[in-house]
Amino acid sequence: MSDSLIKPQTLKGFRDYLPGAALAREKLTEIAREVYRSYGFSPIDTPALEYSQILLGKGGDESDKQLFRFTDQGERDVAMRFDLTVPFARFAAQHLNDIGTPFKRYHIGTVWRAEKPQRGRYREFMQCDFDTIGTDSNASDIETLLVIHDLMERIGFTAFTIRVNHRKLLNGLLESLGLADKSAAVLRALDKLPKIGADAVTSELTAAAGTSSEQAEKVLAFAGLTGAPEQILTDVEKQLAGNETGLDGVARLRELFDCAAQAGLPSERIALDVSIARGLDYYTGTIYETFLNDLPQIGSVCSGGRYDNLAGLFTRQPLPGVGASLGLDRLLAAMEELGLTGDVSTPAEVLIVFFDANHTGRYMRLGRLLRQSGIAAEVFPQAKALKKQLQYADRKGFRVALIAGDREFADGVWQVKDLQQQEQQTVADDGIVEAVRGILASA
Amino acid sequence: MSDSLIKPQTLKGFRDYLPGAALAREKLTEIAREVYRSYGFSPIDTPALEYSQILLGKGGDESDKQLFRFTDQGERDVAMRFDLTVPFARFAAQHLNDIGTPFKRYHIGTVWRAEKPQRGRYREFMQCDFDTIGTDSNASDIETLLVIHDLMERIGFTAFTIRVNHRKLLNGLLESLGLADKSAAVLRALDKLPKIGADAVTSELTAAAGTSSEQAEKVLAFAGLTGAPEQILTDVEKQLAGNETGLDGVARLRELFDCAAQAGLPSERIALDVSIARGLDYYTGTIYETFLNDLPQIGSVCSGGRYDNLAGLFTRQPLPGVGASLGLDRLLAAMEELGLTGDVSTPAEVLIVFFDANHTGRYMRLGRLLRQSGIAAEVFPQAKALKKQLQYADRKGFRVALIAGDREFADGVWQVKDLQQQEQQTVADDGIVEAVRGILASA
Repeated sequence: MSDSLIKPQTLKGFRDYLPGAALAREKLTEIAREVYRSYGFSPIDTPALEYSQILLGKGGDESDKQLFRFTDQGERDVAMRFDLTVPFARFAAQHLNDIGTPFKRYHIGTVWRAEKPQRGRYREFMQCDFDTIGTDSNASDIETLLVIHDLMERIGFTAFTIRVNHRKLLNGLLESLGLADKSAAVLRALDKLPKIGADAVTSELTAAAGTSSEQAEKVLAFAGLTGAPEQILTDVEKQLAGNETGLDGVARLRELFDCAAQAGLPSERIALDVSIARGLDYYTGTIYETFLNDLPQIGSVCSGGRYDNLAGLFTRQPLPGVGASLGLDRLLAAMEELGLTGDVSTPAEVLIVFFDANHTGRYMRLGRLLRQSGIAAEVFPQAKALKKQLQYADRKGFRVALIAGDREFADGVWQVKDLQQQEQQTVADDGIVEAVRGILASA
Repeated sequence: MSDSLIKPQTLKGFRDYLPGAALAREKLTEIAREVYRSYGFSPIDTPALEYSQILLGKGGDESDKQLFRFTDQGERDVAMRFDLTVPFARFAAQHLNDIGTPFKRYHIGTVWRAEKPQRGRYREFMQCDFDTIGTDSNASDIETLLVIHDLMERIGFTAFTIRVNHRKLLNGLLESLGLADKSAAVLRALDKLPKIGADAVTSELTAAAGTSSEQAEKVLAFAGLTGAPEQILTDVEKQLAGNETGLDGVARLRELFDCAAQAGLPSERIALDVSIARGLDYYTGTIYETFLNDLPQIGSVCSGGRYDNLAGLFTRQPLPGVGASLGLDRLLAAMEELGLTGDVSTPAEVLIVFFDANHTGRYMRLGRLLRQSGIAAEVFPQAKALKKQLQYADRKGFRVALIAGDREFADGVWQVKDLQQQEQQTVADDGIVEAVRGILASA
């Protein structure tokens, strides 16, 4: 032990994950992995550090400023990845011959951004992406919708809405209104609709985007279309006045809703929202956002879309693709708010109380027996007062305590304590697994 | 697409994980997580970046030179973690009130060292540690042995040997020989025994450690003890001549072997090797090394031990502990060499061939049906020649292809192709899941 201690602290904007939070996050990433794999998406990984040149300018000026960037021991200009998309573009270009196309990957990894720290925003966070690249087939767009649906359902949500749109609908409308050259400004204004309302958007359309008030009205009427998907699509077809771009978007969305229904997705979980203009600079086709019906205010928890070309900066081979990203931090916050996470900080359900070091081997043997039966069991590591050990079990969230000393070992029995019901029974050695299973099943 | 492309490349000493390698590593970390959890170890995570002060000097000069260290945007002196032990020490000291003791954690995470790159050595790698802190009870030492055993067994190894020792055996011998003040030099010499042989070690003992040749002889005779654990322990007891330190080590090892037998571990998988002196500066009690009987040359694949005080630099609260670390990279190399990893780069087993975009919904529906039955199924995303799609299936390692076009849909059947046996059968819609299960079970 040294005389002057170093203060144990994390950097500003960084945090430790204690067991409760780490268990919740692991549960989410395990579900994501299982769902991605069930569709044939393969894992990949890329380094935390890249040549700065690979990362710079890919996320805009703001993102460049947020890079953790430095010169390494070999005088290389390096930086920590700020997302998983740019490394994936580099990866795809570098390994194209090995991976072939179509290529479906998922990537769950940590990324770093030197953002101004604020509540709920950290400089280190985990992303959880999946993408299909090398094909512009609508089947991949449909599959992306199915994956998002399964993710939400497997996590435990029942009331959620995946809002879908297609960039070509708005592009088609703007073409047919003679506003194609103003689409960036129009989309930027439209993106603010939920926040600032129709009047303010109209002002911005006429002022910043330079539309006529008649054009602005048409754009807003379009963005305001609501109803069942097929009804909206029929309305959109009329407004598009035969525009080819727009009709292609309509056809793709129509196929998406048809196939989703055929595949058995509940129709109330998928909505067509022609006003979504997310990812203005990046997405070119189908767009996805996912909202929890009970917590819409936290924003989209799973978003994505189709893009024309993933890796144009690294290869001349065009790589169209479609994918989405599960928002782990938002989901964890939502699950906590909805009471979907428990107050548990142990992955084990059974605590074997430790009474007497003469019986260590017996405690270990019972632990092993339970594990072989698929029940996670912890042996308390040392003799301490029963009360202390039961406090430990309560604090961590164990469900069952198994207790035995000289007398029980002489009789060939254990005391089996249900920690939730506070009930205790005496059970013979060969009945322990069954007794524990009974308590765990009664939750 | 830009005119001048950026060369897609990884930094020297860094690598991408393509699907095959990423799947193999994920399989290992999933097993580790399951085993750790089954014993009640909880996950934690710590940031990749720490104040340099936290990390400096904890791994010696060599490790300081290998730090990826820089000044961040807030003028802080920061560095990337080079192991998971120092961050755990900082974590334990910082959160001691929240976590309480005893505390059992596992941590699977990436670490970075700017080492000279060489074959099989990378600057970024994953560690996979578990520890129990806050108790010096031998029960935790015994449990550590059980965890290592279960890890190896669950990964698929049957022929492995966990070599155990206790630092107090050698310390006791040296005390009883009057060499206690020379123990560092003696242990350093002894550590070289497997590499340089008994004669060279004798020379080093007399020269560098300054022992008499009689003392050197006794040390070597001690280190050369072989046989069943109980036999060695009896021999050691005699040689220790009543030394208290040594006898405490003997008692702890005896209990460890007894309890391991009671818990049902096969005795041939655990050996007592009194010559192991690993982790000279760090470990103070039980020491563990794990060797694959068929590949001893790759070294220990799971190592660890007991230490007196985890976090003495950060807190005055003494935190004794015991733990070990699974060597993922060595294990992956070993599994490849032993043929335990397949040539598969997809997590899905079934490929649904895509013939006709008019049937997209049917392909999607079948995929969903298989997934709901627990079978991972990929739908090929676009219409392509059957031959091309089957080549894709072969290259990735799919086991079954399901094929249907107009005719099959009219008849309500699918062609079910076993890709390993190259056999094809026609199966009615409602028999698909069963037919696929049959092929997968016949592996």
